[in-house]
Amino acid sequence: MSDAHAVRRERLREHCSTAGVDAALISSPANVRYLTGCAPCGATLLLTRDRALLALPADLPPDDTGEHPYAVELAHLVTAPDEDTATAAAAAAARLRVRDLAVEEGDLTVTRHRAITALAPGIRLADLDGAVERLRVVKDEYEIADLRIAAEIADQALGELLESILVGRTERHLAMELERRMIDHGADGAAFPVSVATGTHSGRANHLPTDRRVEEGDFLTVALGARYRGYAVCATRTFVIGAAPAAWQVELHRLVFEAQRAGREALGPGVPGNAPDRAARDILQAAGHVENPPRPLGHGVGLEVREAPGLGPADMGKLDNRVPVTVGPGVHLPGRGGVRIEDTLVVRPPEEGGPELLTITTKELLAL
Amino acid sequence: MSDAHAVRRERLREHCSTAGVDAALISSPANVRYLTGCAPCGATLLLTRDRALLALPADLPPDDTGEHPYAVELAHLVTAPDEDTATAAAAAAARLRVRDLAVEEGDLTVTRHRAITALAPGIRLADLDGAVERLRVVKDEYEIADLRIAAEIADQALGELLESILVGRTERHLAMELERRMIDHGADGAAFPVSVATGTHSGRANHLPTDRRVEEGDFLTVALGARYRGYAVCATRTFVIGAAPAAWQVELHRLVFEAQRAGREALGPGVPGNAPDRAARDILQAAGHVENPPRPLGHGVGLEVREAPGLGPADMGKLDNRVPVTVGPGVHLPGRGGVRIEDTLVVRPPEEGGPELLTITTKELLAL
Repeated sequence: MSDAHAVRRERLREHCSTAGVDAALISSPANVRYLTGCAPCGATLLLTRDRALLALPADLPPDDTGEHPYAVELAHLVTAPDEDTATAAAAAAARLRVRDLAVEEGDLTVTRHRAITALAPGIRLADLDGAVERLRVVKDEYEIADLRIAAEIADQALGELLESILVGRTERHLAMELERRMIDHGADGAAFPVSVATGTHSGRANHLPTDRRVEEGDFLTVALGARYRGYAVCATRTFVIGAAPAAWQVELHRLVFEAQRAGREALGPGVPGNAPDRAARDILQAAGHVENPPRPLGHGVGLEVREAPGLGPADMGKLDNRVPVTVGPGVHLPGRGGVRIEDTLVVRPPEEGGPELLTITTKELLAL
Repeated sequence: MSDAHAVRRERLREHCSTAGVDAALISSPANVRYLTGCAPCGATLLLTRDRALLALPADLPPDDTGEHPYAVELAHLVTAPDEDTATAAAAAAARLRVRDLAVEEGDLTVTRHRAITALAPGIRLADLDGAVERLRVVKDEYEIADLRIAAEIADQALGELLESILVGRTERHLAMELERRMIDHGADGAAFPVSVATGTHSGRANHLPTDRRVEEGDFLTVALGARYRGYAVCATRTFVIGAAPAAWQVELHRLVFEAQRAGREALGPGVPGNAPDRAARDILQAAGHVENPPRPLGHGVGLEVREAPGLGPADMGKLDNRVPVTVGPGVHLPGRGGVRIEDTLVVRPPEEGGPELLTITTKELLAL
């Protein structure tokens, strides 16, 4: 794996060389992790033409050997208490006679950026402008392997939930249990707070669990994400509670399932990012379900739970091979509830069998 | 409570007036919560001389009434998907003919700050420079009431843990159980990832739980924090596993307890922030335990788990009445383990009985 990280750093060096800068200062946690394999809270990476130096905050605990555990492969420095790692890394850049330094203006606050300017007056600062995020879009097989494990963990937690008694339990309790199960199965943690939505809450995106209890006849929408070695996946399923769903529930579930399938099937290398959204949205709109404003069908996933590329109506860029994305349409009928179904898939060409489904839990309308 | 928030906004308006700005743009989540009582993820507050307007992100779920649930008392606008709430609020400021706008340069990224400049070219931007953080230092009785409840929750979770079987369980499992118990007792969640450290890990600050199992004869250090209605407290205790602690364990625990008591007793209105640190550190150093670099004894707590004032060796500012702080010295002996004991207290004058202890779980060396 250290080879893979060295390759990534080399690609960033090529970018810097093309952009005419000597070095890059990486402060975004996901980008530090991508380039080093480790993500100590608050660390900053300085990457020059021939060095990689990790600035670590003073209050990280050392490991059993008394060494800081995060920088085994990389040179590192430990800041003074209350010293910012970004300014410490910039000071190191000044000592190494860096002249043009690209920083992450999308991550650094105005205050931190100003401190770097003040501390290293001889250095010209430029904006890295999302260069590492662009490198991260297409995943290598190490990353896809971690995403597969994250998906297995989410599937296991969801599968166990389906076997338990649900009626009478609150959304908050079910969400907590799902989070615990994911950690039990080896997740770093939940990729985002688990959303459990029952009854009139069902089908809503980003629903925060409440003390509402699951009742007979409810729709139950569960949206969860597992994180494994930093990599996140998302899955959403909607089930019905009780012996038999009502006719409107069967119909609405069938419709959202059909839209979600159309979205999945529209994925492919070279396809515009908004094509899956249009495929899914056309089906929902034909049935009279118009979202205003339109919520994007999906987005890329990886070290961040929501990253490039976007899969919304306005996303025109073409999808690449080996890009993991979510596809998750939904319909919410105010006062009644609704359905949301979301998978994480990896874009693959038809000759490799098309999109690779990572979250394999059944999407049928199970009656629980 | 809405009155309390209105009073806070009025105090910020007074600050703006003194600083010569028309309006303030508040983007830091803790500051938005402090001024409005609600903390929707990604919201930005615009506060002008006569208005308070909350810009909400598009993807917040509406509540059962179909209304956005977060802005009952305040005027609000909902951004377009992918629109930033800070730029939307700045655009609203431009429409309201604001000329001088103070923003949070310590919170806004360079990119967001530049977008505001581009979008509202007629507005001069200034730095709010921590004004809301300074208002937040001294707590009102509503805030202290929430902190008391957060402390009760942490104490309950810790108390239940002490009654359970510990030998053979892993640090990770115990940490997860403590987090679950805090939520069961009504916490919003853990204020930070619970730290459980056994054996040679014990006594370490910021230890990340591992798969090490608790063994007979171990020290066990538990550091946890509960959050209630946004307000966080911290507590750390060290116990010993088995029938009887070893002589060195008894001695080390006695020493850290004595240092922690000295730190607590040094708290008071008008006392320099570094006095409690010196009181505690003198005792540890006299016994030969020198920290290098020195880790601050404590810090303020409130809507952020670590906020002003600092209680480190270099903090010279005077403490105020009604400021909640942590006091938590520790000693870690590499290869052996150690002791850390931390409380959350509210600074009170002697005539009110001195510092008010919030985290009341026993600090004795219990043998579990």
